[in-house]
Amino acid sequence: MTSDASTRAYRRLSVEERRSQLLDAALSLFAHRPPEEVSLDGVAEAAGVSRPLVYRYFPGGKQQLYEAALRSAAEELEQCFSEPADGPLTRRLGRALDRYLAFVDRHDTGFSALLRGGSVVETSRTSAIVDGVRRAAAEHILSHLGVTEPGTRLRMTVRMWITAVEAASLIWLDEDKQPPVDELRDWLVEQFVACLVAGAARDPETAAVVRDALARESPEEPVGALIRHVLPLLGEAGRPR
Amino acid sequence: MTSDASTRAYRRLSVEERRSQLLDAALSLFAHRPPEEVSLDGVAEAAGVSRPLVYRYFPGGKQQLYEAALRSAAEELEQCFSEPADGPLTRRLGRALDRYLAFVDRHDTGFSALLRGGSVVETSRTSAIVDGVRRAAAEHILSHLGVTEPGTRLRMTVRMWITAVEAASLIWLDEDKQPPVDELRDWLVEQFVACLVAGAARDPETAAVVRDALARESPEEPVGALIRHVLPLLGEAGRPR
Repeated sequence: MTSDASTRAYRRLSVEERRSQLLDAALSLFAHRPPEEVSLDGVAEAAGVSRPLVYRYFPGGKQQLYEAALRSAAEELEQCFSEPADGPLTRRLGRALDRYLAFVDRHDTGFSALLRGGSVVETSRTSAIVDGVRRAAAEHILSHLGVTEPGTRLRMTVRMWITAVEAASLIWLDEDKQPPVDELRDWLVEQFVACLVAGAARDPETAAVVRDALARESPEEPVGALIRHVLPLLGEAGRPR
Repeated sequence: MTSDASTRAYRRLSVEERRSQLLDAALSLFAHRPPEEVSLDGVAEAAGVSRPLVYRYFPGGKQQLYEAALRSAAEELEQCFSEPADGPLTRRLGRALDRYLAFVDRHDTGFSALLRGGSVVETSRTSAIVDGVRRAAAEHILSHLGVTEPGTRLRMTVRMWITAVEAASLIWLDEDKQPPVDELRDWLVEQFVACLVAGAARDPETAAVVRDALARESPEEPVGALIRHVLPLLGEAGRPR
């Protein structure tokens, strides 16, 4: 890595190339340790360049570099959410979650430091970046549900599930990435279905969305199996005694 | 308020009384604005004492006062979770949520500043206080579910729901406390039931807990109505076509 990095350092890079090389180095450092343990010297070393060069590109120092790295991670994360509006919704959600969980897996420590908000360099600007990603996720989901102006309840259901996914990601990292990622993904999809279905009981808008969404699922999809599993449990409890 | 406060200031208070008077004043200031807008002068004024007196009790200044106020709020919050192990679980959860939501209502701005983590005085110590409250909430829930050593999935379900409740509280504050608090409480209880029931499909431990819990509910409880609402939706989707 060091010799690679030094070789790279002596190539003539364009401003854009250099900037993106520094961001890559920063992102990989921030990804594997909490921000307070990352130094500009460390970034310079990882990129095989001098500290003054890092300062030339990021005169705001570590804070600016951190925000730029965070912004670039946020863009990468938002790309995970793009999914063609085609086929059963649980499949689409599953594929987006696969990409999201691969991102969490790749950036593990940095991801938790970021979301835990315990970082020494957290500011309202960095919070805004993270909130922007959450908002983008909610918009993608609502658009797949075919909703343009969601009411409070539907919006709350979707945002609650997104927060729950963040919590699950952090727990998953804490638990040494157990259960296996495919199980976690299926489980998150099922939790989404459950939250929507429960929301449908009180909210006609959610009920319409759920009816539409379930009609696109085939009984062979995981959601069919889920429903067949839970129906007996519920049937017993719902029956007047 | 000012004249009250001045009267109080001239009474002779014991060390404990004085400390708790200062904490009350600080808590009420931190509760209504973000920590970066609270000053020691403001706390002294609200308590009707001099700034040096505040320093005598909290020589660490604003950071120490903030942590002490946070700790005292955390204790108040944890008291919300105490609930006798008696009757249907959804009723118990509903009562605990009523107390929790009353707390959120009372401390609105301070509550969001705290949870958003955007505070300038956030440190790993303050995060630990907030995490401690989350852990206490999870332990209370698991003990009502009769589980002493929960497996990963059950633990994840409970922790995800707790995070989702935090998210819902913040959204509720953002939306000018709409829907009314009773509706929000019922909705959160229903989301809890939904997450547990969905978790039961894949996890025998969760399934056993759900079976036990549902057996304690009577069909007249809200959970009975919820189930009667969602069964037709699910029945349609679960039927092989």
